[in-house]
Amino acid sequence: MTQPLWQKSGIQIDARIMRFLAGDDVVLDREFFLHDITASKAHVEGLAKIGVVSADEAAALKRELDALAADFSAGDFVLDESYEDGHSAIEARLTERLGDAGRRVHTGRSRNDQILVATRLWLKDQLAVLETHCRAIAEVCLERAAQPALPLPGYTHIQRAVVSSTAMWFAGFAEGFIDNTLRARQTAALIDCNPLGTAAGYGVNLPLDREHTTQALGFARMQVSPVYAQLSRGKFEMAVLEAIAAALLDVRRLAWDLSLFTTAEFGFVKLPSEYTTGSSIMPNKRNPDVVELLRASYASVAAARTEIEQLLSLPSGYQRDLQFSKGSLFHGCRHGLAALELVPDLLARMEWHEPAMRAAIEPAMYATDVAIEQAAAGVPFRDAYRAAADAAASAGAGRTPEGSLAARVSPGAGHDLRLDELKARLAALTPGH
Amino acid sequence: MTQPLWQKSGIQIDARIMRFLAGDDVVLDREFFLHDITASKAHVEGLAKIGVVSADEAAALKRELDALAADFSAGDFVLDESYEDGHSAIEARLTERLGDAGRRVHTGRSRNDQILVATRLWLKDQLAVLETHCRAIAEVCLERAAQPALPLPGYTHIQRAVVSSTAMWFAGFAEGFIDNTLRARQTAALIDCNPLGTAAGYGVNLPLDREHTTQALGFARMQVSPVYAQLSRGKFEMAVLEAIAAALLDVRRLAWDLSLFTTAEFGFVKLPSEYTTGSSIMPNKRNPDVVELLRASYASVAAARTEIEQLLSLPSGYQRDLQFSKGSLFHGCRHGLAALELVPDLLARMEWHEPAMRAAIEPAMYATDVAIEQAAAGVPFRDAYRAAADAAASAGAGRTPEGSLAARVSPGAGHDLRLDELKARLAALTPGH
Amino acid sequence: MTQPLWQKSGIQIDARIMRFLAGDDVVLDREFFLHDITASKAHVEGLAKIGVVSADEAAALKRELDALAADFSAGDFVLDESYEDGHSAIEARLTERLGDAGRRVHTGRSRNDQILVATRLWLKDQLAVLETHCRAIAEVCLERAAQPALPLPGYTHIQRAVVSSTAMWFAGFAEGFIDNTLRARQTAALIDCNPLGTAAGYGVNLPLDREHTTQALGFARMQVSPVYAQLSRGKFEMAVLEAIAAALLDVRRLAWDLSLFTTAEFGFVKLPSEYTTGSSIMPNKRNPDVVELLRASYASVAAARTEIEQLLSLPSGYQRDLQFSKGSLFHGCRHGLAALELVPDLLARMEWHEPAMRAAIEPAMYATDVAIEQAAAGVPFRDAYRAAADAAASAGAGRTPEGSLAARVSPGAGHDLRLDELKARLAALTPGH
Amino acid sequence: MTQPLWQKSGIQIDARIMRFLAGDDVVLDREFFLHDITASKAHVEGLAKIGVVSADEAAALKRELDALAADFSAGDFVLDESYEDGHSAIEARLTERLGDAGRRVHTGRSRNDQILVATRLWLKDQLAVLETHCRAIAEVCLERAAQPALPLPGYTHIQRAVVSSTAMWFAGFAEGFIDNTLRARQTAALIDCNPLGTAAGYGVNLPLDREHTTQALGFARMQVSPVYAQLSRGKFEMAVLEAIAAALLDVRRLAWDLSLFTTAEFGFVKLPSEYTTGSSIMPNKRNPDVVELLRASYASVAAARTEIEQLLSLPSGYQRDLQFSKGSLFHGCRHGLAALELVPDLLARMEWHEPAMRAAIEPAMYATDVAIEQAAAGVPFRDAYRAAADAAASAGAGRTPEGSLAARVSPGAGHDLRLDELKARLAALTPGH
Repeated sequence: MTQPLWQKSGIQIDARIMRFLAGDDVVLDREFFLHDITASKAHVEGLAKIGVVSADEAAALKRELDALAADFSAGDFVLDESYEDGHSAIEARLTERLGDAGRRVHTGRSRNDQILVATRLWLKDQLAVLETHCRAIAEVCLERAAQPALPLPGYTHIQRAVVSSTAMWFAGFAEGFIDNTLRARQTAALIDCNPLGTAAGYGVNLPLDREHTTQALGFARMQVSPVYAQLSRGKFEMAVLEAIAAALLDVRRLAWDLSLFTTAEFGFVKLPSEYTTGSSIMPNKRNPDVVELLRASYASVAAARTEIEQLLSLPSGYQRDLQFSKGSLFHGCRHGLAALELVPDLLARMEWHEPAMRAAIEPAMYATDVAIEQAAAGVPFRDAYRAAADAAASAGAGRTPEGSLAARVSPGAGHDLRLDELKARLAALTPGH
Repeated sequence: MTQPLWQKSGIQIDARIMRFLAGDDVVLDREFFLHDITASKAHVEGLAKIGVVSADEAAALKRELDALAADFSAGDFVLDESYEDGHSAIEARLTERLGDAGRRVHTGRSRNDQILVATRLWLKDQLAVLETHCRAIAEVCLERAAQPALPLPGYTHIQRAVVSSTAMWFAGFAEGFIDNTLRARQTAALIDCNPLGTAAGYGVNLPLDREHTTQALGFARMQVSPVYAQLSRGKFEMAVLEAIAAALLDVRRLAWDLSLFTTAEFGFVKLPSEYTTGSSIMPNKRNPDVVELLRASYASVAAARTEIEQLLSLPSGYQRDLQFSKGSLFHGCRHGLAALELVPDLLARMEWHEPAMRAAIEPAMYATDVAIEQAAAGVPFRDAYRAAADAAASAGAGRTPEGSLAARVSPGAGHDLRLDELKARLAALTPGH
Repeated sequence: MTQPLWQKSGIQIDARIMRFLAGDDVVLDREFFLHDITASKAHVEGLAKIGVVSADEAAALKRELDALAADFSAGDFVLDESYEDGHSAIEARLTERLGDAGRRVHTGRSRNDQILVATRLWLKDQLAVLETHCRAIAEVCLERAAQPALPLPGYTHIQRAVVSSTAMWFAGFAEGFIDNTLRARQTAALIDCNPLGTAAGYGVNLPLDREHTTQALGFARMQVSPVYAQLSRGKFEMAVLEAIAAALLDVRRLAWDLSLFTTAEFGFVKLPSEYTTGSSIMPNKRNPDVVELLRASYASVAAARTEIEQLLSLPSGYQRDLQFSKGSLFHGCRHGLAALELVPDLLARMEWHEPAMRAAIEPAMYATDVAIEQAAAGVPFRDAYRAAADAAASAGAGRTPEGSLAARVSPGAGHDLRLDELKARLAALTPGH
Repeated sequence: MTQPLWQKSGIQIDARIMRFLAGDDVVLDREFFLHDITASKAHVEGLAKIGVVSADEAAALKRELDALAADFSAGDFVLDESYEDGHSAIEARLTERLGDAGRRVHTGRSRNDQILVATRLWLKDQLAVLETHCRAIAEVCLERAAQPALPLPGYTHIQRAVVSSTAMWFAGFAEGFIDNTLRARQTAALIDCNPLGTAAGYGVNLPLDREHTTQALGFARMQVSPVYAQLSRGKFEMAVLEAIAAALLDVRRLAWDLSLFTTAEFGFVKLPSEYTTGSSIMPNKRNPDVVELLRASYASVAAARTEIEQLLSLPSGYQRDLQFSKGSLFHGCRHGLAALELVPDLLARMEWHEPAMRAAIEPAMYATDVAIEQAAAGVPFRDAYRAAADAAASAGAGRTPEGSLAARVSPGAGHDLRLDELKARLAALTPGH
């Protein structure tokens, strides 16, 4: 490993300790190396504006930063354990290529705001991906909800309750993912502020042009207080993970439905064959593994959030504990977004098996319809309820699932799905709005 | 206990099982009994609009609901274990007083949407309180940040790093609580939708006037899908707890600062005596118990969130598991908001002990200033850094905390706190906006 | 409220702050008030042995402590908000009745070791209850596993895989609860040490007879270090909650099985009617609410553990943060043990519905049997597997569930359940051993 | 990637889905590849004993398994994404080298029990490492507690309370890590059972010699029930993580102490320079980063536990969700054990700075001594307490830390540390016992 930047001469370094300190840091830094370079360019521009680097130096530094980004993307520059971390790698490269100009690049910034700004840009990207996936899921659900509805048993307690429909089922998840889209956008609005220029949490004795870097990096506002910039580390990561987790909560319930619906006992849904796998010992099996891993993905996001949450019982100011937030963050975002990415296609292509669904609709499932009809006709509901309970088994005489759904006229129910309202809400959340 | 509403004749009830099923439910229901009554009034109005109850019945039902609310508030009606739950208590009272009109009140609704709407109204109240507390904390911090600044050591790793100030410290928490205010409002916007009229998750065969109840109850929009209404149970509770937790994260770090600053070793802060307590065995002690419990309050919110999160690995549709979300929700909201409530006064009245703060500012803390000055004067920063590191102990010769702060001109730092920007941001979040 | 013991004159008390400090403490203290009294008696005996109280005083104090315990149990003494906490209540009562002898009772102890010892005794009781419930569940499972086995589909991925049996299902949970019994005992062994006599975490200048109190209170050993006594607060609570949680993990999976097996689609199990409830809107429903709340109970234990875990990021020595561990602990233990208590009777009385189970066994479920038979006959397993996969649908020709189970001769499988080994293991864990 | 073992012809594979299914599985499988090979050898022996493979085949298979292990250890065999997982890689290699004998190796087992047994062996190794580290920490603490004691302020609420000593501090952590050693051993006893031979959770129609594999692999007992073998997946992983977490809880508090003690304000401890690092912007800094990462390591273990806990809300039988338990398990064990590994050397070499410790001992810290002296002399403690509180500032007249410690004669306190009892307890936990 190269000598750490902060290393004073004469102090022995212990390999085991260095390994513990480094962790997977340099590998993790690959993930936002390009964001670090982007922010470094803005920082260089800011330094040029206040005369700390000359215009020529700035141009050279930006050129080399672009070259480094290109090399990294092409695999010609590998960020590995030979560097202390990504930040040091950038400075080392610039110094190697440009000498003193490279040695000037860290003026007025600290690794503290450098990691903050790179992470912030990365978090914004993750939220954009989250929003894209949530929107895509909502759109597929709205499309399928608009297709001719098939009767589906409506369950409470996983017990057959009343007649429902495939359209109601899709509409439910559509509204959920519209909310999840909103949550992604709210979270983006919350964290969309520039920490670059806050140094180690107390600012510096230079008139940094933070308005410039804020605008150059596309932030909505400056994160004004250097003290708060530090306090927001971990807090913002948690907010992002919570937004992903909210979407995964719905995925978990969706996956549970599919897990049940694809059992032999329910038999309501057939998954595209790519979404199933076989067994190493039981030749007869086709298992819905993808659905199970979708269900499980919530756990990874929850774990990531827990790890950061556990770190944050600290006084203000930077503490090294926060280093562990990086690995968690990547773990949670990666697993969470990978799961969401698969959902639209799965939902678009899953097939309903109508005979099983119809067979599962029992006469007693019309009892609520009957009770409410009588209540509408003047019988006090509680009396109608007791009467229907006693006659539940025979309640369905002459009734059909279609009839039940056609009569379900309360707003949002089978006969009045209000998909247009949902579409309008989603449209109002489009980036252009 | 009264016979449960759903009880069929001839089935034996086992006391131990009933106790397990009931849990603390009826006691918890006290918490949102008034919200349940409010929603019941809107439901009655809605039923009147579609002719399920007559205008006279509606008037009578609303009158009795008001009377029940008044009795409950006055302590003349006690919701206790003699009722199955708050919902049953309302129907029982209306039936007792009004006969068939009472027996009609449950037409077209289920306990599922009844609990959803009462909880939703309650959650909105909690978020309003959260917003109030966060705003109050931000305001106190802004006020105190505007007072003449005292020098305060700036720490990283709880090691003395550079000169900071009391104003920078307060400004940091001010910006944090402005964000927390925003988060409270975002969360309110997310959950501000009416689930009343979704029944047991599949709607009903009645043209319920959900537009009316949405507007009468002050919701921003209808929660359209009955399936999603069920999916949102727990999910919305978690969102609210996360908003409270975000504020408590900052409180935890604030409390840690105060816990350290009030030690004999730091000695920077004196708390008002009401915020300290004594020891049962050590007569010499005055302990910052309030600060410690503020720090600990995050744990209660985290626990509440965990409990609900653990429940939500379920298929869609109502499951009884969700009953346990109530107790957690109250636990988390109560502890979290009680902690936030104490913070403004504590911050307004805590006193800085200037001599200790000055004494803690060492010459080496000017080393960064020196290095950056030299960098500004043309020495490449990395060289200036190494020079300053070697001469750290003597770096401060002739320097003062005031001088260091006066030169800290980067936006947000000691000389350029930008409190006006922060104030403007907070003002833009006022309810009127 | 009475004046706190540590209150110095002249300091104003703010009601809101006092409420925040007190929390539900005094109510929670009821839970281990009797344990506090028990420990106080041992402490008094110890003081008598070193001459701090006279033999007469000791006798009087113990008599009054017994009287207080009797009054409390009879409801004649109510521990309420008029006391600062349970500890103060004891001292106040002794002082009121016995004057100076009462004022001597706190000699050489602190509320710190007082709460530690009372909690420790309470934790040991909880673990004893846990052990009892786990053992009872294991015994019921062993009994039912010994009854004539019915064929039950064996699932992986909730997909029908191979033939299993009711006996294998019960035997599985039997072994689980034998392990849970062991875990309860291991945890009891871990925490079975006496903290009384460690005072505020640094011991005292008195030759306390800790051997006596250790033995009088039935502890296996002394918790030697006063510093560790403090460090163990929360840590031991977590260990106990983890032992309960381990049992609840199995309950959660058991409840999931029953939740599925009681659906109309599976239809394998009929619960005793006391374990089901009805719906407020759907007259046709009988819901397995008890099973759902059993499943949900894990969440309460998890939440309790989380709350304590979040508190414990602290330096050594007592901190007030730990006060919040009490409420969590009670919450988790109460919910967790209440759930476990119901399981034996539920398992003893649930009924299998044989026709549905038989109907769910498909020919393809014999494919593994076929492949292994051929492998036993010399065909390489991987070839046999591929052949069986191709012929899965016809694999079962002429086969029966009974035949499949009879041939399942691997140890632990249908034909060789080895219940005797399990029984012997459970017997070896009996208290007498 | 090679064709999955379970792949039927004619089904299209989607790369994105395959990637999602695979996750990091094959990389993670490297971690227990050797354990999988070890277990495979025992399985081959078992097959030979029941005649499924011939003696020659068994010898060849074992020879090739040894060769594979050697190749893997030497880096000549790389387990990478070209294999579906480690299990497939083993079978593929054996088949490639030995033809039909290789195709026979999977007879009577499933990937389910194969992963279970490999993980179980790995978990036992982790617990052995945990025990080693805990024991080493306890031993260092006992050694340092036996060195001449220096006075150290004893804190409660991080407020100076009474005189303590370096010996009491070390003795406290010694007892903690003795308990942690016990916990490691208890957990090892809990999970020390052989799941090999339970196949996919329902056994097989072969008389597998499970006694042989149990003994050959060094397990204390057979895990009898195939159903329970599946139920224990995740449950046992959690138990191991909880045992590691218990030790890390103590490390977290230890690290907090050191974090405070190394501040300029406390100044009690000097760390070996290898345990500190510098700052990228502040040339004057030496930061206790190692101590902070030790403190943070708890979070990684907690996160790992959370991830598995969140997965386990499932019916019995294998579900693919459990795949995610692998990554968490490695993450938690690796971080947790790496932290513990550093502690003994750090504790052995940290230096106390006596002058600062003495300077921090104030006269008021003798007030408890005074009150108890008077109580011992006959003044009722509560009266002595009040008198001492009023005179706290002058309490220390003529007193010394040494005097206070010499008088601290309660068992476990400064004058009576009882290190022999602690040593005996640790010795009783040695592997030989």
